[in-house]
Amino acid sequence: MLIIGEKINSTRKRIKEAIARRDAEFLKGLAVEQTEAGADYLDLNTGAFPAEEIELMEWLVEVVQQAVDTPLAIDSSNPAVLEAGLELNKNGTPFINSVTLEETKFSTVLPLIKKYDAKILALAIGQEGIATTIEGRFSHAKQLIDALCVEGIALDRIYLDPLIQPVSVQNDFGVIALDVIQKVKDLFPDVNTICGLSNVSFGLPDRKHLNKCFLAMAMAKGLNSAIVDPLDNELMGVITAAQALLGKDRFCKNYIKRFRSSS
Amino acid sequence: MLIIGEKINSTRKRIKEAIARRDAEFLKGLAVEQTEAGADYLDLNTGAFPAEEIELMEWLVEVVQQAVDTPLAIDSSNPAVLEAGLELNKNGTPFINSVTLEETKFSTVLPLIKKYDAKILALAIGQEGIATTIEGRFSHAKQLIDALCVEGIALDRIYLDPLIQPVSVQNDFGVIALDVIQKVKDLFPDVNTICGLSNVSFGLPDRKHLNKCFLAMAMAKGLNSAIVDPLDNELMGVITAAQALLGKDRFCKNYIKRFRSSS
Repeated sequence: MLIIGEKINSTRKRIKEAIARRDAEFLKGLAVEQTEAGADYLDLNTGAFPAEEIELMEWLVEVVQQAVDTPLAIDSSNPAVLEAGLELNKNGTPFINSVTLEETKFSTVLPLIKKYDAKILALAIGQEGIATTIEGRFSHAKQLIDALCVEGIALDRIYLDPLIQPVSVQNDFGVIALDVIQKVKDLFPDVNTICGLSNVSFGLPDRKHLNKCFLAMAMAKGLNSAIVDPLDNELMGVITAAQALLGKDRFCKNYIKRFRSSS
Repeated sequence: MLIIGEKINSTRKRIKEAIARRDAEFLKGLAVEQTEAGADYLDLNTGAFPAEEIELMEWLVEVVQQAVDTPLAIDSSNPAVLEAGLELNKNGTPFINSVTLEETKFSTVLPLIKKYDAKILALAIGQEGIATTIEGRFSHAKQLIDALCVEGIALDRIYLDPLIQPVSVQNDFGVIALDVIQKVKDLFPDVNTICGLSNVSFGLPDRKHLNKCFLAMAMAKGLNSAIVDPLDNELMGVITAAQALLGKDRFCKNYIKRFRSSS
């Protein structure tokens, strides 16, 4: 299970404020904490500052790299920001967040994946937007994987995100995501699957409970990467348990290590 | 999701003691409580008293039927006990727990399924015992479903139990059960799948946490029935959440009802 720490994202109020006041120590602390809690990658996003997004991404990459060696996921809808972050990356294979089938996006992000030999978060979004049926969503997923594959991107560099939408909005939005994960793993065993979690519970009470359940369910269907808050001890405990239940934790060592003090 | 309340089982110390002292009121209380908490069926087991198992099952069926109209799952490895319980059943379609491919068991339980038009818990156990590979376990599941089908048992009366064994004993015991659930649902969409939970976590710390995770994962794979303690509020909360996430809770009404007082 590959964990991308989601915390250093300027759409979060406290992070936006910290970036605005150039609080390098606070952000370094978050990088260290997430790494110690098990993050394999750290997502970096400065999108809340459209006018300075490039400069702030450059600053953020430098700041985080002063604190940790953890690989980085450069997160922006602007390819120039992606490139700025990738150019300064020294922490091993980078992650690009993200690409879709949308023509402009695909054609601008593709050269970056190749140039920086990056892992790529591939969102199942088509030219015409997000499909609201299993067939439509999977078709977008398959088209995007095919398109990347044709361009020589190795399947195991691709992290397909089925897109998580709220079950409170459309009853089968959870099932669409779960089924796309399984279909992708069935058809492309080497392709990774990834998702964020919190959208699924939008508009409902006790969202953390729903998010934890959904994470376990998605892992049962083949999810092998997630963008999460690694400091959320309960959520990380679900990942540890699910790994043990899926036979991916030899002798349940990690599970026992995490839970041995529990009753 | 069909919930079988597991509490009235003489292998549990407190229940054994209550049955031993013929404490009808205590057992009636458990029947009422489980029903109010959402049990669709109540499992009844007097196996801890081999010499009096028949008489005690008769007594227990009468006692429970005085308290509730909830349908009953008659649980015994002894066909004579099953028949004694079934004969006295007045609470609608009964459940028989259980049948396997073992020749004597199959040939003695089959007539009871037919005579009492019962639902049947079909354990994936072959002539030679429990298979420890996915292929072997699924082969037993398929053989048992086929054998029941040939005898005219409707597919939707069959509740296939993949058998849950501890991941602490063999790393892939969780995966075997999860994959058998999915394969059964793929091949026989009308057959139900069922399991008990607690075995999966045997020998590990914080067993409840593992059990809850496993339940959500199994539901994602197609589990549509479970033998659980309906008074376990956290476990029932996982079922409610998973149903919402699987699009089986219109407008998330049941989820909101259960969790609306949460933050």
